[in-house]
Amino acid sequence: MMAKTNPGRFFEDYRIGQVLTHAVPRTVSGGERALYHALYPARHALYSSDEFARACGLAASPLDDLAAFHIVFGKTVPDVSLNAVANLGYAEGRWLRPVMAGDTLNSVSEVIGLKENSNGKTGVVYVRTRGLNQRGETVMEYVRWVMVRKNNLDAPAPEAVVPELAKVVAPETLAIPPGLDFSAYDFTLAGEPHRMADYEIGEVIDHVDGVTIEEAEHMIATRLWQNTAKVHFDATFRDDGKRLIYGGHVISMARALSFNGLANAQMIVGLNGGAHANPCFAGTTVKAWSEVLDKAETSAPGVGAIRLRLVATSDASVGKLKDETGRYLPGVLLDLDYWALIPA
Amino acid sequence: MMAKTNPGRFFEDYRIGQVLTHAVPRTVSGGERALYHALYPARHALYSSDEFARACGLAASPLDDLAAFHIVFGKTVPDVSLNAVANLGYAEGRWLRPVMAGDTLNSVSEVIGLKENSNGKTGVVYVRTRGLNQRGETVMEYVRWVMVRKNNLDAPAPEAVVPELAKVVAPETLAIPPGLDFSAYDFTLAGEPHRMADYEIGEVIDHVDGVTIEEAEHMIATRLWQNTAKVHFDATFRDDGKRLIYGGHVISMARALSFNGLANAQMIVGLNGGAHANPCFAGTTVKAWSEVLDKAETSAPGVGAIRLRLVATSDASVGKLKDETGRYLPGVLLDLDYWALIPA
Amino acid sequence: MMAKTNPGRFFEDYRIGQVLTHAVPRTVSGGERALYHALYPARHALYSSDEFARACGLAASPLDDLAAFHIVFGKTVPDVSLNAVANLGYAEGRWLRPVMAGDTLNSVSEVIGLKENSNGKTGVVYVRTRGLNQRGETVMEYVRWVMVRKNNLDAPAPEAVVPELAKVVAPETLAIPPGLDFSAYDFTLAGEPHRMADYEIGEVIDHVDGVTIEEAEHMIATRLWQNTAKVHFDATFRDDGKRLIYGGHVISMARALSFNGLANAQMIVGLNGGAHANPCFAGTTVKAWSEVLDKAETSAPGVGAIRLRLVATSDASVGKLKDETGRYLPGVLLDLDYWALIPA
Repeated sequence: MMAKTNPGRFFEDYRIGQVLTHAVPRTVSGGERALYHALYPARHALYSSDEFARACGLAASPLDDLAAFHIVFGKTVPDVSLNAVANLGYAEGRWLRPVMAGDTLNSVSEVIGLKENSNGKTGVVYVRTRGLNQRGETVMEYVRWVMVRKNNLDAPAPEAVVPELAKVVAPETLAIPPGLDFSAYDFTLAGEPHRMADYEIGEVIDHVDGVTIEEAEHMIATRLWQNTAKVHFDATFRDDGKRLIYGGHVISMARALSFNGLANAQMIVGLNGGAHANPCFAGTTVKAWSEVLDKAETSAPGVGAIRLRLVATSDASVGKLKDETGRYLPGVLLDLDYWALIPA
Repeated sequence: MMAKTNPGRFFEDYRIGQVLTHAVPRTVSGGERALYHALYPARHALYSSDEFARACGLAASPLDDLAAFHIVFGKTVPDVSLNAVANLGYAEGRWLRPVMAGDTLNSVSEVIGLKENSNGKTGVVYVRTRGLNQRGETVMEYVRWVMVRKNNLDAPAPEAVVPELAKVVAPETLAIPPGLDFSAYDFTLAGEPHRMADYEIGEVIDHVDGVTIEEAEHMIATRLWQNTAKVHFDATFRDDGKRLIYGGHVISMARALSFNGLANAQMIVGLNGGAHANPCFAGTTVKAWSEVLDKAETSAPGVGAIRLRLVATSDASVGKLKDETGRYLPGVLLDLDYWALIPA
Repeated sequence: MMAKTNPGRFFEDYRIGQVLTHAVPRTVSGGERALYHALYPARHALYSSDEFARACGLAASPLDDLAAFHIVFGKTVPDVSLNAVANLGYAEGRWLRPVMAGDTLNSVSEVIGLKENSNGKTGVVYVRTRGLNQRGETVMEYVRWVMVRKNNLDAPAPEAVVPELAKVVAPETLAIPPGLDFSAYDFTLAGEPHRMADYEIGEVIDHVDGVTIEEAEHMIATRLWQNTAKVHFDATFRDDGKRLIYGGHVISMARALSFNGLANAQMIVGLNGGAHANPCFAGTTVKAWSEVLDKAETSAPGVGAIRLRLVATSDASVGKLKDETGRYLPGVLLDLDYWALIPA
C-alpha cells in the first residue's frame, strides 16, 4: 500500500531542468483583498480603491502585489521547502501583470541550480518560480534558493550548478502594466505629496509606526496563502514551543508600515534580493525603515521607478544592519531590495 | 412588558412534528470563501479554484461543504441548543446542492424525537434540519440530537419517540451535483495521485500536520457562522474561565488537515455520524487521522464515493480511540463518519 | 530634504473653515461584509441577507452602517487625531445612503470649532466629517471633537469658536433609504417578534451575552478600517505595554450584542452622541444593555424610528452609569445615543 501523505522532496530528488507543477490553483476575490487590509496596515491607494486605480489607467484595483507573491510562493512549499532548513535568498523577481478579482493563480517552478554542501548532509536548490493566471499568462516570477536536507546520505552529489543571478533587476526590464499613467495622479487621495524627484538616493526614511504581532494573525495570514509548513502552525513542532512566523508575513507588515513616508511607491514591480535576517515570533513589535537605493525613468506617462531597501526590525536602530563581522544584528528581521513604481 | 431577549427553548417546549423556522438568512460571497481559507488549512482544489471546479463540470468553485454546514447549523443554535447540556450526535446528513457565491441560506428544523431522561431534569431532542437556498431548494439536511434542560421540572414527560436513524447514509442515496465529471480530473493540480482504487478499506492515514488553536481564531470562525452560543465567547461564563471551542471548528480543522493524504476526497456528500468525544480549548494542537471505511460507485463519470472516519486528536495515538470500557480516550476530540466524492 | 512621514496636525495647525480631504479611498466588497460578521456577533437580517434586504425594498444588503462609519472615521485619523489626547464626543451623525458592495468611500472634514484649553498646552478641535461615495453623494456625516496637543506652546490661542450642536438629531431629519418598506417585514426570519409598539420609552434591555476580546481581533478590525493609530497596534507605545482598543470596536461589539432584544432595530440612521467612558483593553468581557429613549414615526411604509442608549460595560450593573459626582463608573466602556429604523 502506497503511503498517501507527501514527505516532500529531499536534496537528492532534484535534477537540473526539472519542472515542478505545483498543486492547488486559487481563485481570488474581494475576500482576499479585504483580508489583506485586515491583516496588514496596508493603505496604498491603488490597492484600496477601484476609482483611484482607474484614474491611474488600470481596469480596477489589483490584488496587492505581495498577496500575489504569497499565493504563488505558498504553492511551492510542498514541493520545494518542506524539508528545507533555510530560505537563503531571492533574486530576479518581476511582477508582470496585475492580479484582478476573479483571476485564478497557479505556480510552476524549474530547478536551475544544485550544489551539495561539503558536509554531505544538505544542499542548495535554486528554483525559478512563475505564477500564472487562468489565461496562462505569467503574473510574476522570481528565483529562490533554499538549503534542503538529504534523506539518503549515500546519494551521490550532483554536478554543482550555480546560476548566475542578476544582483539587481535592470530597470529597463521592469514590466509596467499596460495603460498605467500617473500624469493625473491625485497626491491628496494617495496620502503624501512626495514624488520621485523628492527622494534622494541614499535617503533613509524611518516609518515610525510599529505593530506587535499575535499568533492568530500570522497563522490566519499564512493559511490564506495556503502555505501550510507546520513550523508556522504547530506549537509542538519546535523544541522551544514557538511558532516561526512565515517570512512573507514580515515582508508584508514592513511594506505596509512603509506607507508612512512612501505612500506613493505604489506598485511593486521588481524584487532584487532579500534576506530573512533573523527569525520572527509572536510578541515581536515590528518596525520598518527604508533606504532609497536608486531611481529610474520608465516609458509610461508620469511613472518612475524607485529602488528601495526595506528593513524590518524588532529593536535595531534605523540605518544599522550588520555587526563588524558582517552578520545581521539580532534586531534585524528582514533586508529586502525591491523596485516600485512612483509618480515621476 | 414582554421580555425582549430570547431565553431559548427548554425540553418541555418541544413537540413532535413542531417546525422551527430559524432566523437570520445569510448571503455568502467571496468573503466567506476567503475567510474559510484563512481560518483552516483548506486546500481541496475544487473549493479553491473556479477553473478546477469548471474542469470538473461545475459552474464555479462552491463554498466549502463544511462552511455550508456551519451556516445552516449556526442558525439552529438559538432555537435548539441554547439550553443544551450536550450535543449528542449526528445522522443522515446529506449535501444536496453546492452553495455558490451569491446564494442566501436559511434553515428549518423539524422535531422528530423526544425522550425525557429518567432524572426528570433533562431530555433528548431530535431534530431534522434542512438548509435552503433562495430558490427554496434544500442544499443540505441532517439529523442532530441534543440533551436539553427542563425549565419547569413539573412539566409532564412527553411520550417517548426515538426516531430510527440509518447508521450509514446508503451510498446510492448520495446526491451528486449535476454535471460533476471526474473523467478529466487533474491529479497534479489537485496535489496527490491517489484515486479511489488506491485506497483500501481499513487503511489508516496519519495526516501528519498539526495546528495549535488560538482563541481569536475559533471565535472569528464561530461568529462567521453566526453561532453566538455564549460558551464560545464569554470567558466569564464557565467557572474555569475557558471558552469552549465550537465542535464544528474542530471538524473543519481536521478535515482541512486531511488534505495531506486525502487531497482527492473533494466533496463531502454524506454525514453518517459524529461525536465530539472531548471538549477542545485554545492552546490545543489538533492533529488528525482517517480510516477508510467503505467505497462505492456512483452514476457520475469517473466519480466514486469513499466513506471515511475522520478523527481529530489532541494527543492520542493514531488508530486508538477508546479505552477498554468503550469510553473515548481523553486525547480524542472528534470521531466523524462521512462520505466524500473522489475520482474513481 | 523634506521629512517624508506624517507628523500629524497639532492644535495650532487648525483654522476655522479649513477643509481636510482625507487620503486613501476604499472600495468595499463582500470581503468587508464577511469580515464584519466574523469580527462581531452581527446578526441583523437586513445586513446578512440580500433576499431579506430586497423584501424590505433595498437593492441588496448594505454594508453594516457601523462598518461604513468606521471606514469614514479611519480616514480622518492621520489628519485629525494623530496627536489627539482624547476623543471627546460625537454629535449630529446621520447615515444618508446605504453603502453597497462595489462602492468606493472617501472622507472630507471641515473644522467647525476651536478652543484652546486654559493650560495653553492643548485645545479642542471640532470637525464635521462627511463620507462620500464614488458618485460624490454623502453616505454619512457626523461631528466629532477631540483634544489635540499643541506643538508650539508659543503659538497664540485662536479665537474660541464652539459650535452649537443639536443634543439630538431631530427625527424628521433622519434619512430613510429610498424604497425602504417594512410593511411585509418577516419577523420570524429577523429573529424576534417585537415591533416599535412593543417597546416602551424608558424600557431597559439587558442583552445578556458577552464577548471576551482578544488582541488579534481588535487589531484585525481596526486595520480593516485603515485606522492605523499606533496606540492600537504597538505594545511598546504605552508605558503599561497595553494596546488601547479602538473605541469603534467597542461600539460595533455592543451593537452586535444588542441583537438579542433589539433584533428588529435594523438600520442605524442617526448618532445623537457618544462617550468612550473608559478605555478598553484585550481580555475584557464586553456586555451591553440598551435603554429606549424615544420613538418617532417616519414617512416610509411600516418604518418607525427608535432612539436608543447603548451602553457597553466590562463589569458594571445594568442601568447604572455614573457615580454620585457624575463620573462614569469604571465598568462602563461606552455610552452611545442613536436612532435606528424598526418596523412600526
